[in-house]
Amino acid sequence: MKLDNSNSNSNGQVSLPAAADVSPPRNSDDADEAFVPPLNFAMVDNGIFRCLCPEPYPEATAEFLNANGIRLYQFGIDGCKEPFVNIPNDKIREALKVVLDVRNHPVLIHCKRGKHRTGCLVGCIRRLQRWCLSSIFDEYQRFAGAKARVSDQRFIELFDISSLKHNPLIFSCSRK
Amino acid sequence: MKLDNSNSNSNGQVSLPAAADVSPPRNSDDADEAFVPPLNFAMVDNGIFRCLCPEPYPEATAEFLNANGIRLYQFGIDGCKEPFVNIPNDKIREALKVVLDVRNHPVLIHCKRGKHRTGCLVGCIRRLQRWCLSSIFDEYQRFAGAKARVSDQRFIELFDISSLKHNPLIFSCSRK
Repeated sequence: MKLDNSNSNSNGQVSLPAAADVSPPRNSDDADEAFVPPLNFAMVDNGIFRCLCPEPYPEATAEFLNANGIRLYQFGIDGCKEPFVNIPNDKIREALKVVLDVRNHPVLIHCKRGKHRTGCLVGCIRRLQRWCLSSIFDEYQRFAGAKARVSDQRFIELFDISSLKHNPLIFSCSRK
Repeated sequence: MKLDNSNSNSNGQVSLPAAADVSPPRNSDDADEAFVPPLNFAMVDNGIFRCLCPEPYPEATAEFLNANGIRLYQFGIDGCKEPFVNIPNDKIREALKVVLDVRNHPVLIHCKRGKHRTGCLVGCIRRLQRWCLSSIFDEYQRFAGAKARVSDQRFIELFDISSLKHNPLIFSCSRK
């Protein structure tokens, strides 16, 4: 069990709590208790989820991860607004390697709004899955809504996936 | 291999092609070919997907299903607009039984827009997963966008899940 905050960045980050068991309680005492998924929560693919979370990283969440043996990877990415957006290629690449490594699954990708930084990372995953750009942008826009940024979509389009192509891809729709 | 159109309804339907292998081609000849997922495509949970498709059911799609051993379940549900909306409880219940049966996975839920009928069915799945209503509606609205209907959300809220509670629930986030 390890809580790895070494890569923390108070300016903002995309974070990846890995191997989380966040299933709702199942014993009869709480059978009617509502399960509250994180805001903007969705399944990206087998073992990969996305949501938003407050920044800076909440102390209570860090304690929860610590107590439940969940590893946290943080990649400091400045979430500042256009036209000052500058998404670092290397950080996205590092985060992709963590996400694509099935030993880290299930993994939850999050940032402050679950739109821009998380959207860029998910967009790059779709590039690796060879989704056409129109479908990648459609998904990006579904989560970003009125906050969608052309610069994010340009980043996704131009991101160089050649060095990551050797990673075994996960395809949710493949037969087991 | 069976193409089951017995429940077809020209007024509209929610359709469930089950056990589809829709992974992109992997041989080297087409390594750079873009993969075009269906419109409004998303993963609901392990083995459950959603999208939209044209109505009436396209002949070419029916032929594809036939040629690939994919079973099609169709549940005729009128997709008419408010205030004439009347989502039939029994059809949603039948469809839920098909979706929840892991022998049918992977399963793709679709309707004409992938918003209202599919949104109601997915909302009922979330009820069974005990998601809180605010999160169920948030997901519904993400896919319905400007076409979101209060009547659909009311249907989801009031749908009686008691008879379905004995079904084994799928929780994507549970440890294997």
